[in-house]
Amino acid sequence: MYELGIVKRNITRADRRAVDRLAGFGVATVHEAMGRVGLMKPHMRPIFAGAQIAGSAVTVLLQPGDNWMLHVAAEQIQPGDIVVAACTADNDDGFFGDLLATSYRARGASGLVIEAGVRDVKVLSEMRFPVWSKAISAKGTVKSTLGSVNIPLVCAGALVQPGDAIVADDDGVVVVPAAMVNKVADAAAAREANESDKRAKLAAGVLGLDMYNMREPLQKAGLRYLD
Amino acid sequence: MYELGIVKRNITRADRRAVDRLAGFGVATVHEAMGRVGLMKPHMRPIFAGAQIAGSAVTVLLQPGDNWMLHVAAEQIQPGDIVVAACTADNDDGFFGDLLATSYRARGASGLVIEAGVRDVKVLSEMRFPVWSKAISAKGTVKSTLGSVNIPLVCAGALVQPGDAIVADDDGVVVVPAAMVNKVADAAAAREANESDKRAKLAAGVLGLDMYNMREPLQKAGLRYLD
Amino acid sequence: MYELGIVKRNITRADRRAVDRLAGFGVATVHEAMGRVGLMKPHMRPIFAGAQIAGSAVTVLLQPGDNWMLHVAAEQIQPGDIVVAACTADNDDGFFGDLLATSYRARGASGLVIEAGVRDVKVLSEMRFPVWSKAISAKGTVKSTLGSVNIPLVCAGALVQPGDAIVADDDGVVVVPAAMVNKVADAAAAREANESDKRAKLAAGVLGLDMYNMREPLQKAGLRYLD
Amino acid sequence: MYELGIVKRNITRADRRAVDRLAGFGVATVHEAMGRVGLMKPHMRPIFAGAQIAGSAVTVLLQPGDNWMLHVAAEQIQPGDIVVAACTADNDDGFFGDLLATSYRARGASGLVIEAGVRDVKVLSEMRFPVWSKAISAKGTVKSTLGSVNIPLVCAGALVQPGDAIVADDDGVVVVPAAMVNKVADAAAAREANESDKRAKLAAGVLGLDMYNMREPLQKAGLRYLD
Amino acid sequence: MYELGIVKRNITRADRRAVDRLAGFGVATVHEAMGRVGLMKPHMRPIFAGAQIAGSAVTVLLQPGDNWMLHVAAEQIQPGDIVVAACTADNDDGFFGDLLATSYRARGASGLVIEAGVRDVKVLSEMRFPVWSKAISAKGTVKSTLGSVNIPLVCAGALVQPGDAIVADDDGVVVVPAAMVNKVADAAAAREANESDKRAKLAAGVLGLDMYNMREPLQKAGLRYLD
Amino acid sequence: MYELGIVKRNITRADRRAVDRLAGFGVATVHEAMGRVGLMKPHMRPIFAGAQIAGSAVTVLLQPGDNWMLHVAAEQIQPGDIVVAACTADNDDGFFGDLLATSYRARGASGLVIEAGVRDVKVLSEMRFPVWSKAISAKGTVKSTLGSVNIPLVCAGALVQPGDAIVADDDGVVVVPAAMVNKVADAAAAREANESDKRAKLAAGVLGLDMYNMREPLQKAGLRYLD
Repeated sequence: MYELGIVKRNITRADRRAVDRLAGFGVATVHEAMGRVGLMKPHMRPIFAGAQIAGSAVTVLLQPGDNWMLHVAAEQIQPGDIVVAACTADNDDGFFGDLLATSYRARGASGLVIEAGVRDVKVLSEMRFPVWSKAISAKGTVKSTLGSVNIPLVCAGALVQPGDAIVADDDGVVVVPAAMVNKVADAAAAREANESDKRAKLAAGVLGLDMYNMREPLQKAGLRYLD
Repeated sequence: MYELGIVKRNITRADRRAVDRLAGFGVATVHEAMGRVGLMKPHMRPIFAGAQIAGSAVTVLLQPGDNWMLHVAAEQIQPGDIVVAACTADNDDGFFGDLLATSYRARGASGLVIEAGVRDVKVLSEMRFPVWSKAISAKGTVKSTLGSVNIPLVCAGALVQPGDAIVADDDGVVVVPAAMVNKVADAAAAREANESDKRAKLAAGVLGLDMYNMREPLQKAGLRYLD
Repeated sequence: MYELGIVKRNITRADRRAVDRLAGFGVATVHEAMGRVGLMKPHMRPIFAGAQIAGSAVTVLLQPGDNWMLHVAAEQIQPGDIVVAACTADNDDGFFGDLLATSYRARGASGLVIEAGVRDVKVLSEMRFPVWSKAISAKGTVKSTLGSVNIPLVCAGALVQPGDAIVADDDGVVVVPAAMVNKVADAAAAREANESDKRAKLAAGVLGLDMYNMREPLQKAGLRYLD
Repeated sequence: MYELGIVKRNITRADRRAVDRLAGFGVATVHEAMGRVGLMKPHMRPIFAGAQIAGSAVTVLLQPGDNWMLHVAAEQIQPGDIVVAACTADNDDGFFGDLLATSYRARGASGLVIEAGVRDVKVLSEMRFPVWSKAISAKGTVKSTLGSVNIPLVCAGALVQPGDAIVADDDGVVVVPAAMVNKVADAAAAREANESDKRAKLAAGVLGLDMYNMREPLQKAGLRYLD
Repeated sequence: MYELGIVKRNITRADRRAVDRLAGFGVATVHEAMGRVGLMKPHMRPIFAGAQIAGSAVTVLLQPGDNWMLHVAAEQIQPGDIVVAACTADNDDGFFGDLLATSYRARGASGLVIEAGVRDVKVLSEMRFPVWSKAISAKGTVKSTLGSVNIPLVCAGALVQPGDAIVADDDGVVVVPAAMVNKVADAAAAREANESDKRAKLAAGVLGLDMYNMREPLQKAGLRYLD
Repeated sequence: MYELGIVKRNITRADRRAVDRLAGFGVATVHEAMGRVGLMKPHMRPIFAGAQIAGSAVTVLLQPGDNWMLHVAAEQIQPGDIVVAACTADNDDGFFGDLLATSYRARGASGLVIEAGVRDVKVLSEMRFPVWSKAISAKGTVKSTLGSVNIPLVCAGALVQPGDAIVADDDGVVVVPAAMVNKVADAAAAREANESDKRAKLAAGVLGLDMYNMREPLQKAGLRYLD
């Protein structure tokens, strides 16, 4: 973990079909299907609303103020990948802009998740190249200190192994270990089937109190109604 | 205040007609009409731009990571109410999503103000169900510890009594005690009438320095002009 | 610096033609052309997306909770100016709203950069009066303590001299000393010319690793590729 | 609530004997005895370690950058009181220093709780005048805008009525409504008696798992032990 | 990773002798010996100054507002262990106090690292039971939702495997994978030997510029001296 | 301002005798004597309590994660100087530790003010080498990108010119322009003389309300006393 100066070329990507299914469910459903784990912290926000993607992670460990490894990572991208970048220290510099986005898109990347800053957000939005970041900043970076590509790393509080499935939408970003994508996609599908029925009932005025049979446990827990 | 395990069923709601008037003025005007008090802290942000609502507060005190009381609160909602939720500790979990929104809308709620996180924001935006929150997070919550419904509570630094009028728009959220809504609506109306005249003068190039007669007090305070 | 109770009337504005050129380049390019200095901190965010402006700074030093000097500053605005306001202490109050925006626009101001809060953001957005701020808040302010207008000040970590060129867009805000605007505009033009060629290559699939000749320095720095 | 420009002279202070008992228990115990409510947020920190006090609240609502009301409040202090100050906006200015501390001590105040900044902390520490604040700052304040004294207010997320009991130590600050001090003191005493027995058992190596009979509920909740 | 509801009983602890050596070097030296990786984020602060410890990690994943798993973890502690606790969401509640500390000490724990809040810090300081936390808060917690014990987790941005060596002092907390402790201890020893010589030279007035041969690379990088 | 890659060797230091006088007054008094300007933001905190120093600034502009310029700056230190370091981006890395402190002390530096992180704080405290910083972190830094020494810079929101007087104590850090030190020292002396008299009156029970003649302006402002 976190060895510096390394690029791992061969990584095992999550099953593409399962990843595509995950994209359809969105982050909240996948997170629940995972057993409520794997979520990145909520300071990771999309630079524009409405994108909902999933892909396999190409991971990048950056040094503060230095985006060299984002260039190194480009070569490792395969179509459908999502680049996931973390930094060895909290840093809001603009590590990524429209030129890198052009390159990443040419390589087939679906998007970027970076616990740091990005810039050229107007152009990125026009390109519809989705980015989840913790800051927007025009601050430029140097290219002088090595990090690594495709090592396990922690991004926004979540462990990411290269090849893991990443799902991202307006609610944030969740990580699904590559070995679990099929199981999680199945669980998500079951959950979603279940939800449309619930939604209809709730829309018709049925209370969750009744639909979920909460009244008895609430009473046992000691809830008192006062007039 | 803050007694746990209680649901108060009968609350005195602010006068509906006055509340509707408040909705028209918006938060900044109402806050001024209140004498510059009652405002929630500015970390409360709308999940989509453009909503401007007012309603009576159904209050909910939550425990961290636990949204049980939001289900209990649904039953207490009457048409036009705004649910106001606070948590006993700072917590950004996603306490509220599209299923609860469906239920709340079916009950007639106009919106939600929650000093915590929400999820399914894309669907909530499509539904045009307005929420003011301090975070967006897909993180799920449990249903195991009691809070309370319709007790006085502090939300984002403002005291909220059940039944108080809540006004919310892109500028934030303000609380108007139920007993004051008519008086505040009148003051807001007076202020607004006054403002359109000022706006016209300022648009015509009159300086606030002259319109507000500031030159003399500025001079008295010692302001010096240098060339 | 920071002398209180002063309004400087005659300031030397940056060359208008060069300022207009800067507006076309945007913040990231100008920041690079400056040698990667002069940027405000990334907590300065636009209240609506898409504005991209440049102008000469009319500077305002405010006291916490007090917007008196914003009224004083209005008189010093000339067409094309950008008002840059800082506060002697961190404060998120709503110092600026639609009335002041009406007045500033009547004076010809292109926008406002304020390290504090603003309100009436819905109206400001409809007016398309661009503001970069660190908060949105309906909280009103008083008019009782002097600050200064057109003194050098620090705004969001950047030194601003009255008359300096300010460039602002969705990436943030950068300050260009008045004496440097022509030189910086030339450097920005050169950089931009250079970028379109790079963009085309990257879009065609050329890697930055090759285009920027990074492979050799990476190897020298010790980068290892593993399979 | 929050009416500005008011000083309430006659307030009903919490029973002194009960308040003194609360001082002996400390904040964590009193907070538990309250039913886990009434706590201020954890950003309220003591300026020096080791103080543990209780007293009746004299409340002060301040305006940002303005400490006028702290002078007005001095006259309302009775021996054993704790001054509790909040501000209408987040502000870290140094509202309180050694001169005010000298005055407050002369009036018999036991300490200060202020959701803002203080200064002269070296002298305050030497005087052993305890202060809980959210910041330390030398920044001076003006005396020009009215707040109020002895109105109900929200300080660090907790509602404080004038006369309420305040307990503060290295763990933070808790508010006990004046009418509840005897009941809370009794509950705290019962809890503390209970704790010394528990402490002895735990020190002897008994596990909380056994002492609190947690093994069965953990098993029911589904906990699995793996080797 | 992050499976909930699990207690792993048999973990492989880092070599005790090597861990003891690490304790002697302190965090900064061990972090450098690791190749500048493995550090927790700097918001992890000791509750009292001067402690410097190392031990093997017993990991605990907590739910917000719920300290049940800290009780479960007590049984898994062996002499010399350090408990490392993280929470599924940011939460500053007081999960740990003097009773748990008494129990942990009876089990032989050397200390606690918790990315959450602790309470009873005065007593903990008197007991000299060292804790590194991100907050101090008297806020009590419930015991109702499962987390896990001895699973891999992320604490303050660092991946921690059960059994990993933890080193903590006034500079923060660093994690050394169990398999690397001997190698890291050797590297730290080499580094420290090297440092005392450097320290002597610097104390004698030799400049780092000369001692580290920086003048030539600085010149190459383009550094210019002006008079 | 902010030109990178420059070391200015000859700077005009503030008058030493006046600087020594400033050290005696402390930060709050000097800040008031300055007219309430020049203060750094309150996130700048001392690593140990009790130090109170003044000296002339040797300024250092750092790049994120890179402490090269702190080594370059050592050569420019003269006895009594205080090194003031800022970074081009927010970064909490540990830029400074006991080796640099040994070197700085050998050069005669009185202390360090750095808007970034420091490490080895236990040793620095034992050495009594005072540092004001915004973070404590063991995180190491590289030496590869140029910043500058002895250029004007912004540190924690305050403009610092090389040679300016810096005063630092437990209340924070204030900057006094070199040209103003004598005037400010005189004003501080006058203020302090004035304060001891006030302190005696307040200690004797005289109210600030009377001593400062506040009753009339309070009444004019509309303050109402209620029983």
